[in-house]
Amino acid sequence: MAHIQLPVAPELGREFPGILGLMTFRPETAGPINELVNVLLRGESTLSRGERELIATHVSWRNDCFFCQTIHGAVAAAQLGNDETLVHKVKTDWESAGISAKLKALLQIAGKVQLGGKHVTEEDIAAAREQGATDLEIHDTVLIAAAFCMTNRYVDGLGTWAPADLNIYRGNAASIVANGYVNVTEAATRQVRS
Amino acid sequence: MAHIQLPVAPELGREFPGILGLMTFRPETAGPINELVNVLLRGESTLSRGERELIATHVSWRNDCFFCQTIHGAVAAAQLGNDETLVHKVKTDWESAGISAKLKALLQIAGKVQLGGKHVTEEDIAAAREQGATDLEIHDTVLIAAAFCMTNRYVDGLGTWAPADLNIYRGNAASIVANGYVNVTEAATRQVRS
Repeated sequence: MAHIQLPVAPELGREFPGILGLMTFRPETAGPINELVNVLLRGESTLSRGERELIATHVSWRNDCFFCQTIHGAVAAAQLGNDETLVHKVKTDWESAGISAKLKALLQIAGKVQLGGKHVTEEDIAAAREQGATDLEIHDTVLIAAAFCMTNRYVDGLGTWAPADLNIYRGNAASIVANGYVNVTEAATRQVRS
Repeated sequence: MAHIQLPVAPELGREFPGILGLMTFRPETAGPINELVNVLLRGESTLSRGERELIATHVSWRNDCFFCQTIHGAVAAAQLGNDETLVHKVKTDWESAGISAKLKALLQIAGKVQLGGKHVTEEDIAAAREQGATDLEIHDTVLIAAAFCMTNRYVDGLGTWAPADLNIYRGNAASIVANGYVNVTEAATRQVRS
């Protein structure tokens, strides 16, 4: 049970899990959050969608948010040849994961942002630049990490529930990959209001 | 100097301070961030604009973000009879500040969210309900706190600069109170592009 009363999804007999239940409760704030996440994780970028989902997943793992690390991990895997082993490695041991040196340097920055903005050093930035990271990639990495410090706190701060069955996340990830965050939330909101 | 190259504001001869410089660099993400903050801090609510700015200011102080705590503190004061002493008290010693018992209970929740979502307890929620807080007020408090855990990290994670002169914040606060966050950012973006 979440800390507040959320709309019930007829297909579940209870509220939608994680952030989805919160978004059906407050569509006015769901709109801009989804738009932000959509630009950062799915908009035009020189980082692949899979790479950006890995940054989101790593930060959510660092914040110990089960719902967010599992859904974004599933979205990352779906966009990286279903390589769930790689996703797990990027959460727990990214320094030795099979990813580019540039992505490792960006994950180093993202991890610092999770601790607090002032932890990011000139050296962290210089190391990312040495691997070819652009200003826009550095900007978006910091903002992805910061945005997930928001959504992780939102999801856990209101005590939302999270399914244990990983197949549920795999199914939802397929919807997100196909339709995007905005459409998945809007479909859920229509369901609870019908 | 920020960690990345930001557009120069002609009137300053350098980039705009804090989040404003970042927003002129990346208008695609500035839009939804401002829209979210606008709904949370200025939209319809049973919490006053001043009370909501106090929550944002308290969280930004907890995250040690000088720019955010100072600009939102100035906006709070502007909406609370210019009572800068009250704002200072809410940052550093909110439990004995001259604010309602309901706002104190909400600040208790906001402070827990700053630490991490799982720090919020059933008791924190019950205490806020006892003081008359509604589900929507509890929701918005958690999301305001979470959103400032994002913006504080965004501002400091990219190493933006912050003026020391408090009169600059008082002047900008007056613009924000009069025109809102979206318009102030759009005016800044037009300036750097002209």
